[in-house]
Amino acid sequence: MFDRLARYLPVLDWGRHYDRNAFANDMVAAVIVTIMLVPQSLAYALLAGLPAEAGIYASIAPIVLYAIFGTSRALAVGPVAVVSLMTASAVGQVAQTGTAGYAAAALTLAFLSGAFLLVLGIMRMGWVANFLSHPVIAGFITASGILIATSQLKHILGISASGHNLIEMVGSLLEHLNQVNLPTLVIGVAATAFLFWVRKGLKPLLIEAGLGPRMADIIAKAGPVAAVAVTTLVTWALGLKDAGVKIVGEVPQGLPPLTMPDFAPDLVAQLALPAVLISIIGFVESISVAQTLAAKKRQRIDPDQELIGLGAANIGAAFTGGYPVTGGFARSVVNFDAGAETPAAGAFTAMGLLLASLFLTPLLYFLPKATLAATIIVAVLSLVDLSILRKTWGYSRADFLAVAATILVTLGAGVEAGVASGVLLSIGLHLYKSARPHVAEVGLVPGTQHFRNVQRHRVETRPHLLTLRVDESLFFVNARFLEDMVLERVTEGCPITDVVLMMSAVNEVDYSALETLEELNRRLRDMGVRLHLSEVKGPVMDRLERSHLIRDLSGQVFLSQYDAWRELSDTPKHRAAE
Amino acid sequence: MFDRLARYLPVLDWGRHYDRNAFANDMVAAVIVTIMLVPQSLAYALLAGLPAEAGIYASIAPIVLYAIFGTSRALAVGPVAVVSLMTASAVGQVAQTGTAGYAAAALTLAFLSGAFLLVLGIMRMGWVANFLSHPVIAGFITASGILIATSQLKHILGISASGHNLIEMVGSLLEHLNQVNLPTLVIGVAATAFLFWVRKGLKPLLIEAGLGPRMADIIAKAGPVAAVAVTTLVTWALGLKDAGVKIVGEVPQGLPPLTMPDFAPDLVAQLALPAVLISIIGFVESISVAQTLAAKKRQRIDPDQELIGLGAANIGAAFTGGYPVTGGFARSVVNFDAGAETPAAGAFTAMGLLLASLFLTPLLYFLPKATLAATIIVAVLSLVDLSILRKTWGYSRADFLAVAATILVTLGAGVEAGVASGVLLSIGLHLYKSARPHVAEVGLVPGTQHFRNVQRHRVETRPHLLTLRVDESLFFVNARFLEDMVLERVTEGCPITDVVLMMSAVNEVDYSALETLEELNRRLRDMGVRLHLSEVKGPVMDRLERSHLIRDLSGQVFLSQYDAWRELSDTPKHRAAE
Repeated sequence: MFDRLARYLPVLDWGRHYDRNAFANDMVAAVIVTIMLVPQSLAYALLAGLPAEAGIYASIAPIVLYAIFGTSRALAVGPVAVVSLMTASAVGQVAQTGTAGYAAAALTLAFLSGAFLLVLGIMRMGWVANFLSHPVIAGFITASGILIATSQLKHILGISASGHNLIEMVGSLLEHLNQVNLPTLVIGVAATAFLFWVRKGLKPLLIEAGLGPRMADIIAKAGPVAAVAVTTLVTWALGLKDAGVKIVGEVPQGLPPLTMPDFAPDLVAQLALPAVLISIIGFVESISVAQTLAAKKRQRIDPDQELIGLGAANIGAAFTGGYPVTGGFARSVVNFDAGAETPAAGAFTAMGLLLASLFLTPLLYFLPKATLAATIIVAVLSLVDLSILRKTWGYSRADFLAVAATILVTLGAGVEAGVASGVLLSIGLHLYKSARPHVAEVGLVPGTQHFRNVQRHRVETRPHLLTLRVDESLFFVNARFLEDMVLERVTEGCPITDVVLMMSAVNEVDYSALETLEELNRRLRDMGVRLHLSEVKGPVMDRLERSHLIRDLSGQVFLSQYDAWRELSDTPKHRAAE
Repeated sequence: MFDRLARYLPVLDWGRHYDRNAFANDMVAAVIVTIMLVPQSLAYALLAGLPAEAGIYASIAPIVLYAIFGTSRALAVGPVAVVSLMTASAVGQVAQTGTAGYAAAALTLAFLSGAFLLVLGIMRMGWVANFLSHPVIAGFITASGILIATSQLKHILGISASGHNLIEMVGSLLEHLNQVNLPTLVIGVAATAFLFWVRKGLKPLLIEAGLGPRMADIIAKAGPVAAVAVTTLVTWALGLKDAGVKIVGEVPQGLPPLTMPDFAPDLVAQLALPAVLISIIGFVESISVAQTLAAKKRQRIDPDQELIGLGAANIGAAFTGGYPVTGGFARSVVNFDAGAETPAAGAFTAMGLLLASLFLTPLLYFLPKATLAATIIVAVLSLVDLSILRKTWGYSRADFLAVAATILVTLGAGVEAGVASGVLLSIGLHLYKSARPHVAEVGLVPGTQHFRNVQRHRVETRPHLLTLRVDESLFFVNARFLEDMVLERVTEGCPITDVVLMMSAVNEVDYSALETLEELNRRLRDMGVRLHLSEVKGPVMDRLERSHLIRDLSGQVFLSQYDAWRELSDTPKHRAAE
């Protein structure tokens, strides 16, 4: 009973062994992650088109809920770049940025995502995430990174621009280029350059100065905090607000509010599909981070329970002024490297963010939006990896096609169309490939009982006996191809009287394939050719015996291909018997 | 050159060897088929919501065009029941029955179907028809038969009723039941009973009377002609038109008109999807008839060329006052049984129908619609076969689900939704099944070099060595499952130090699966476990060598599993070497 409960509430498992040592480690990790999360959360909220505080709210309750329901010891849940972009795209279609309706729709989206993830988790359907092939995910993340970085350029330039795809965005940027605000541009470019340097140049410097590589990495991750502090001070001191530098402004001080998603049926209908896509993309991102970190400590995470953890986190976000969240890559790695031992580190991080939202927000009044944009740009450009195009091109054209289509459609028509077309194309290409089952004509290797491909080995064959080894399970998409192949061989003019299908690699024969085999048997009989089977696996045979095929088979079922050969390789005898 | 042309114009092939004997046989077949086709064509046109003559027009040009481009020697192309129903459903959504717009939309639908089939044929994409699994086709045909029979009941009862699905139809029939026209009901029931008797009881009688079974069958197929003649005479003689019996009335006398489909963009957009579905359903019906008949004479038909033949036939129908057509089951079998040798039989049938439309139509003025309805009902009820539910239930639950869903959705929401949901469900179920690849843990059969499933055979294993035989190609849907399985086994607490994947049955590793294997390799290395591969097929190895996997592999690639066993089964040695 307790074990069963612990399966759904992993907190019951690790909570029992929690000690002072783990507490100290978790606490240190929490402080470091909190410092990193404040600017990141604000930035992602702006990316999602929401007020800055929504980013902090979206980190508090979700982190706690994930700590209770999730299985990863190191995953840090909250707003992430790609999901923020998808939120902006989905909510932007039903409400105007900056309105109360926009924020309410973001809550609805979080609730729908959460509910969908929970349902998948309870139904133990974590496997649906497998329908996103790696090339599609890589293409989507890369294209999203480019879209996000482009969308932030307006903040760096201090102009207003808009657009739902790359072409619109770039066009809009060029159109407003004459309105560039110089102080904003200086801050934006300086912050971007600084953050790039922190990422690439600071760490080696710190290591040279004698710090351990882990510590150096953690300090480098805190770079955005320095950028935030310096640019805020400069903007305040020089009065740059009046020079046209856009600032974050008033951020409400206080606890996350209790909020209610908008359940208007129209809104729910419009957001349902985006919610599904956001859930799946978020789940895939989260699970790959969690698995990577868990493997380092030889731990396991349970994908189905992860769905429940992420579902609870999103529902939490929906009722506390947040928006869709998931396990983020950067924050989770920092959490792990800083020594987090249990999900309690997440709970302490939540407390840190709570304190920040209670006391820190007035200090953010003069924070330039350009600094936040710089944070985002530097973060997402590390996601952009066009080498996937080269890699897939070298490995498999079908995979290349899926990546290229995903990138182009995402850039040209937006994130939802991009993911959808990538998934459909992957499934389509897979079915196309599996429509041609691998079938080899085999012959006897002289002096043995083994049968090998006639095209690769010198083997014995008989002109009246066609033996085909079927190397794949037979199902509706590929069965007819096998039938066509056999019939083509038989009508080619050779005097074939017996066809043997060697079924050693067939794990399943679905009903369509069964009917195709029955049809093949009938058609071959009409031509005076007998059909035999050999080496049928046990479970497949059990099923076939429940059908007409075995009873009506014009030939026999042989236990081994060698039995078939011994019985059938001698022509005149059986021709006489007919 | 000639051969290449002959591939696209099969007429060049059989036309060269055409002689007097073949001419005589084709002529006899043509006369018999013509007699059968006249009432059938009229009836199906009414089912499609078109004037009766459209059915005859739809048989003339298409038959000739198919004779030129098609590959089947016996297939008879023209209106068929299911395609007529689908036409009524598709065109009914864009125009009112009986208007000029309705007829024009039917032409557009025929043109779009034809164009789609042609394009598929030229791109040699006949394999797309494989995406309709047999259970889906069976379910769809059965549900369509029920829908068609129900839709004809109003003609038998002499009332007006409507509806797009079974519930609406039955409701509408019950509502108008008080308006039953007695003379119509008598004619309808008598004709139906007579046709059922002809189908079931006449043939044995004729055989008893000394006729050959083939001849008896052909005479029985001509039953509808007798029903048409008798009920027309009775209606005329008793003046039943004035008693409320609905008759066919004026049917224009003359050659098929030259018509132009309506290419309004709106209309084309609305009809595009139905045209695709009609094409594919029609193609599947046609090809299965053609293959069945071809096999009887050990001939082959070329599915891609069939697409071209059917495409040409439909485009022909679009310009000569017809509507979508395909190769029909009943007419093709009669044609074959009557001795048709070449597609010229079809051309002669077209001439017969031409004569009928020139001279016969005035005789059809008093033909009761109830008789045509009886013809349809008797014909389609033979398509209804609910036993597919029982058969699939016994064989495979997934296939049962696909049939049941197709039948229910077709009856409840119409033909297009039925086919679409059946196809999507089949693909979904297939992917669901393939998401769990067949993987067996294997051990060495003592005294041999063979490795077998540990659950089925008594085999040798080692606690530190996990050997998994992968029985399926690895691709994006199932690769993660393999990874999960391996990681679960390794983290279970056993002291596993080496994992061997035996790849003898893996025909392909797509890019996602490659990355999953690389990830698995990294994660196992993080845990101090080495990953090895064995028995990798040549083409798979060629590709893997182009990737990082082989270079970064923590273990080795073994040519045979037995090599792996010899190298790895001895624990202390290799642990010491590390």
